[in-house]
Order: sequence, then structure tokens, then C-alpha cells
Amino acid sequence: MADTDTTHPKTLKVALLGAGNVGAQVARILLDDADSLAARTGARLELVGIAVRNIDAPREVELPRELFTTDASALVRGADVVIELMGGLEPARTLILEAIEHGATVVTGNKALLAVDGPSLYEKADAAGVQLSYEAAVAGAIPILRPIRDSLAGDKITRVMGIVNGTTNFILDAMDTTGAEFADALAEATRLGYAEADPTADIEGHDAAAKGAILASLSFHTRFALEDVHCQGITQVTADDIAAAKDAGFVIKLLAIAEKLETADGGGPGVSVRVHPTLIPREHPLAAVHGAFNAVFIEAESAGELMFYGRGAGGTPTASAILGDVVSAARRMVLGGPGRTETTTGVLPVLGIDAVTTQYYIGLDAADQPGVLAKISALFAQNGVSIETMRQTVHRENDGHENGSAELRIVTHRASEAALAATVEAIKGLDIINSVTSVLRVEGV
Amino acid sequence: MADTDTTHPKTLKVALLGAGNVGAQVARILLDDADSLAARTGARLELVGIAVRNIDAPREVELPRELFTTDASALVRGADVVIELMGGLEPARTLILEAIEHGATVVTGNKALLAVDGPSLYEKADAAGVQLSYEAAVAGAIPILRPIRDSLAGDKITRVMGIVNGTTNFILDAMDTTGAEFADALAEATRLGYAEADPTADIEGHDAAAKGAILASLSFHTRFALEDVHCQGITQVTADDIAAAKDAGFVIKLLAIAEKLETADGGGPGVSVRVHPTLIPREHPLAAVHGAFNAVFIEAESAGELMFYGRGAGGTPTASAILGDVVSAARRMVLGGPGRTETTTGVLPVLGIDAVTTQYYIGLDAADQPGVLAKISALFAQNGVSIETMRQTVHRENDGHENGSAELRIVTHRASEAALAATVEAIKGLDIINSVTSVLRVEGV
Repeated sequence: MADTDTTHPKTLKVALLGAGNVGAQVARILLDDADSLAARTGARLELVGIAVRNIDAPREVELPRELFTTDASALVRGADVVIELMGGLEPARTLILEAIEHGATVVTGNKALLAVDGPSLYEKADAAGVQLSYEAAVAGAIPILRPIRDSLAGDKITRVMGIVNGTTNFILDAMDTTGAEFADALAEATRLGYAEADPTADIEGHDAAAKGAILASLSFHTRFALEDVHCQGITQVTADDIAAAKDAGFVIKLLAIAEKLETADGGGPGVSVRVHPTLIPREHPLAAVHGAFNAVFIEAESAGELMFYGRGAGGTPTASAILGDVVSAARRMVLGGPGRTETTTGVLPVLGIDAVTTQYYIGLDAADQPGVLAKISALFAQNGVSIETMRQTVHRENDGHENGSAELRIVTHRASEAALAATVEAIKGLDIINSVTSVLRVEGV
Repeated sequence: MADTDTTHPKTLKVALLGAGNVGAQVARILLDDADSLAARTGARLELVGIAVRNIDAPREVELPRELFTTDASALVRGADVVIELMGGLEPARTLILEAIEHGATVVTGNKALLAVDGPSLYEKADAAGVQLSYEAAVAGAIPILRPIRDSLAGDKITRVMGIVNGTTNFILDAMDTTGAEFADALAEATRLGYAEADPTADIEGHDAAAKGAILASLSFHTRFALEDVHCQGITQVTADDIAAAKDAGFVIKLLAIAEKLETADGGGPGVSVRVHPTLIPREHPLAAVHGAFNAVFIEAESAGELMFYGRGAGGTPTASAILGDVVSAARRMVLGGPGRTETTTGVLPVLGIDAVTTQYYIGLDAADQPGVLAKISALFAQNGVSIETMRQTVHRENDGHENGSAELRIVTHRASEAALAATVEAIKGLDIINSVTSVLRVEGV
């Protein structure tokens, strides 16, 4: 490919690994928008090859056949910029390491690999003096990693709460809107292409946990890995939970939360990273995030509350984040400048879920008889859990008659998981309790 | 001030110009958080002086008296980083030019100066090879300029709509919530400190227009100045407008809008930059921006819809943006790297308000008699303006009797300002029309 544009004499060879949903869009934009990208970069970005497993596989975008190769390793060795969009751990990891060894700039959207091996990859890139960028790995098109790293570089983040998985937000939003049960909302998400054939990684919270680890690492200048994240998915959330939350002015979202906490024993600050279904007030900015959209809500000492909202997945939106990284990295290659991997300047300990205090929402099916509220209140007090609000609704049969039982909905003040668990155990032992229908954390009040 | 930290041997001398609301907070953080800023920067940021007009003026934060000086020019000449927070055109402009000449990195939050003189300042900084950063100039604490410039560097922005003035958002939100008239809501904003003693720059839209020019310049890689912005403030918005909008499912916000448009005569694309009160649907993400908060909503070809939300003003939030720029710029000074002024790669023409088509909301007070709707509809059709919805409410006296007049609320399809103005003129000439109660643009539908 001859470079006829003499105003941009420099050409950077770009290797693309993977031509799936996102990769095909990245290739299309690199080819179609070559001139405007060159103007913004100061160098031509020449797509020299696309490594795939099967050259003849059907693709969303028609791309020049001569660009395809099955020899990813050879492609990487001849490139200035390597865009890794294969996903999964191998061969992505080996190819990224090869790229780093050859001094190539690496751009990846591989959250699974970064959550497991990020710290060692960042170190190798730093040691080799090459750039490793991964804006697309968290919240798709939303610029979130660069603002945390650069724009908030002079501030101190105290808490990050993110809706970072579009599949689960679609499901919970559908349940909230239509009253559907989880299984039906999941089926609808699958039918519409928002959930994969095997939705486990999404609905069990693993995908959100990987993103939570990356967000926590950048926000708190400390490296967290996937195993540091306490993770609970949404499979146990029922239509009754959603309805009760709605009734009390809340909406249930799957949040990835990273927050700095003082440890109870005075051992200094640490960081809790966790993913779980969470009640948030309906007037909270995160409550207005519908469908498969993502958003990340940040609290910082000086900036106060910030929120970043946009599409968390999809070929074209994610390609936007990939190309933002490519152009930014290429500008630095042209003009010289610092690499852009993580800044890890502090080492804060990981706090287990036991160290976290949150408010809780508890639903109880109880006997409708005098003294029930007093007995339950006493148990909360004995376990050191303070009640913020308690609401009782007497159950009625279809004919309108009371059936002898009542629904109790309790929102506590902040309590530790241990104290809350002890309270719930004690309540289960009461003969006036038919069942504990839900126990969910509350944030953002 | 001896530098005893041997792990950060480099020290950058920081000069602060201005110790008002924002400047005092910047000084406090530079002094209080010196160690953590040094760890993140790779160099100590030593505050060497604070230039003020009156050393003995009362300030929000107690600062070491020996740092104060009235000789701003001498302070600038001895600094590596100059933070300009004086506001206004002079002496800010002269001091920034001095800093650039001396090779200092400049960080400013001075939107008024940038909107007037930005292009010439950026050119001088580029020519001198120094960095000029101004994240705080638009939407306070919200990281918006860096995401547009870097994260979306590989994408094409098609439209930006921002709530970029907290005072007017507070006033309109109060009117929406309480039903208050403009004057009362303004008085409340003044009482609470959200509006200045002379609120002209805010309520007439001039402040939003300055920010709109900066946003448009970055988004469309073309330099726009204040005089390129069509500007209409909120002083004419009435409680009736707000109530009628609410009734129709809209909320009224003062938006700064920059969008790329194809010109009607086929002359290629251009950019319209404008500020005006705008109806947006209540389910639009911008509708959920309450009080004095700011938000910028971006539409890009690949990324789709993005929104950035946070505090648009206030000493501490704005200080966060200033320090983000300082740390990012200082990192590049330590490690070497490209400057970060605007990338201006294209020159798109400025389009006047005549080139813009939007939907319109029109409120009419009309006679309640047969044939009124037909006459009005005919006038719209004659002027080439198509009606999307038309709603008629018969006016009643307090005793419930109809009073012979009706309120008509019309939402049009997209129309040019010229066609709309001609329609409104024609309608005013009808004897069945008592008055045209409001004409407002609609976006985000």
C-alpha cells in the first residue's frame, strides 16, 4: 500500500488479532477513515494484516481477503501497533507478550485476560517501555479509564460504583419494567441477542467482577486481581424482590463497587471490591440507566459525584474505544512521550466482604399477630443492627380476606455482613417467621 | 523548601495566579497532598507563590502568608507550571503569554478568555512547544475535554448537547419542581449562592456560549470563537412554558448545542453552535440532571450516545479538574511527550442559526370555536412546516365555565427557523388567535 500523502510521511504498521464483532468494525474504520485518522494521528495507520482462526468464516463486514492470515505470531512480529481482540486467555496472552518483546504498542479489550494477568502484563510493558492501553475492556464505548487515570490524577477517588454488564442491566431493567421473572427476562435477552447462548459469565457476575478489578486497580493505584473481588450474580433476584424494591422507592441493579474503607481494627485504610445485586434509590443517577447501557458513578474527594454513561458493548461502540486508544498511542509514538500503563503508587490491602458495612433490605414473610414487630426489632437490636425503616403489609387472599400472614420490609442502617447474617439466622429461628424472602444490599442513599 | 524525598528528585516550581474560590482550594491541595501528588507525578509540585491583588483580602482557606505576592509577572517568570485562575481577559492574557514565552506549562480554567482568544493562545503554545490545558474551563469537575480529545480520537462526533451552566440549570430545575416564575427562582438561586449578584452572564447564556465554543472546537477539530455562537438566554421562559412542557412530557433545559449539519444547498458539511432554552423528553438522560449539576451528552458515529455528569462549578470540584491537568502535564514534563493543545485538522464552516432545523414547540392562546384547528393547520402547511402533535385544552374560569378561549400546544416536525418564523408571523395575523404564548426548540426526541 503506497503512502501518497506527503503531509504524513510516517506510517505505522497495525496488526489486528481477531475479526469478530469488534475486530471487523475496527478493520472497517481503519480502512474507510484512513485519511481522517492520519490527520488526527500525525501518521498513517496502515492495517497490514488480520489474524484469524478461519479465513473463510462468515463476517459482519466485508474486508479485503488478502489481509487475512492464520499466522498471528508472524503478523505481530512485523507490527508497530498490535490490536488484540481475540478474547480469552490463550493465545491472546502469548501474542501480547510477543508484541511487547518486539517493542510494539498494544491495544486490547480483553478484560478476562487483564483481570487475571493484568499486573504482570503492565509490568512487562513498563519494563519494555511500550504502551499497553485497554479502554475498551471496561464499559465498552464509555471513556472511563483515561478520565480516572488522567483527569482525576490530582484527586482522590473514594468510591466507584459501576453498571458494567449490559446483559444483566437489560435483564434487571426488563424485570423492573414488566414485572417478569428472572428466567423470562433472560430468555428475552437471549432472543434479542443481549445474552449469549451460555450466559453464565454475565448472570453470575464474573464479567462485572473482571471489570471491577480493573476499575479498582486504576482508582486506588493498587493492583487487584479477579480473586480479590467478592462476587454474587443476579440469578436469585425474583420478581417479588424487584416489586418490593420498587414499592419502597428503589431499583435493583447489579453493581461493581470498589471503595476505600477504614478497617474496623484501626489498621489503616483498605479497599473492598465486590459485585452484587444492589438496591439504589430511584432518584440516583444510576437508576436512570436502562436497557443494555452501562454507567460508572465515581465519588472523589474534590470532584464530588461524577457519572459516565454510554454503550457498554457492541461491535461499533467498542471499536470507538479501541480506536481512541490506537490514535492516542500512535500520537505518542510519533511525538514521543510517556507510556500509558497503570500508575501503581500505593499498595492498599484488599478487604474481604466482612470489612464492608452497607445498608440492607430484608424481606420477611411473618405471622400477622400482635407482638411480631417487637420480637423482630428486639433481635435486630441484640445483634447490633439498627433499623432505618420497617413496613408491614398484611397478606390478603384473592377474595380480599387476610390470610394470617404479613410481608415485612426492613431497611437497616449500615451494618457489617457478619452482624446482618447473625440477625437473619436468629430471625429464621423465630416461630412467627414463615420465611426470609430476600436479603439485599442498599447503596447510594 | 528543601526536597528531602530522594525517590522524587525532580521538583517543578508551580505559580498560582489568583486565590479566589478555586485558587484557594488548589493551593490547599498542593500543600496538603504534596506527597501523594509527587508519587503520582514523578516530581514534587512545589507551590512557589500565589499572585493576588490584595494580600490581606479574606480567603476561604488559610494559606501561608509568605507565599502571597502582588508581582504576578515576576512569579510567572520563575515557574515551570503556571496555574491561571484570575478569570477575565486582562491581566490573565498577558500573564499566560509571558508564561508561554518563558516555556512554562500553563493550566487555566478561564473560559471567557479561551472563548475570545483561545485560537491565538493555542497557536502560540504550539509554536513554543509548551502545554496549555483547560479541562476546568468547561463543566467544572467533569472530565470532558480530555475524553473528547483522546478517548474519541478515533471516532467522529456528530452532536454535543451540554448543560454547562449550573446557575441556569438550578433556576430551570426549581421552576420545574415548584412551579415558580423565573424572577422568583432567580432570587432563590441568588440567596443560595448559585447566582452571582450580577447574573447576566449566566441567565443570558453568555457563559454557556463560551463553553459551547470550546466544546465545538474540540469536537469538530475546527476553531470556533464566541461570536460564532447563536445565543439565547432563559429570561423569557415562563412558569406557563414549563408547565406546558411538563404536561407534554418534556422538561426545559438551557443547552449548548454543537452539531455537524449538511448545508441545504449541498455546499458540504458545516457546524452550528448555539445556546437556547430547549424542550427535551423527560426520559432523556439530560432530563435527569438536577440542581446546579452539569452534564454533556455526546453522539458519535461509532460510540453512539455518551453522557458525562458531575459538578460544573464550586471551588473544590473545579480544583479537581485543575489538578488533573497539572499532574498530567507534569508527568509529560518529567517523562517527555507531546503537548496537549487542540488538534485542529479540519476547517468546517460555521453555520448560522438559519441552517439549523429542529422540532419546535409552540403554545397558542386561541378562540374556542369551530374551524380554528383547520385554519391553523392550513397555515403550517402553507409554510412547509409539518405538525407532529397538536393538543387543545379549553380554558375554564375558576367556576368551571369555559371562557371562550383554548390553549393550543403544537409540536412540529423538523423545520428551519425561517419557515417557523414565517409560520408564527402568519398565525399572529389570524383574528382567532389571542396570543402566541411560547416558541421553543425541541431536541433529543
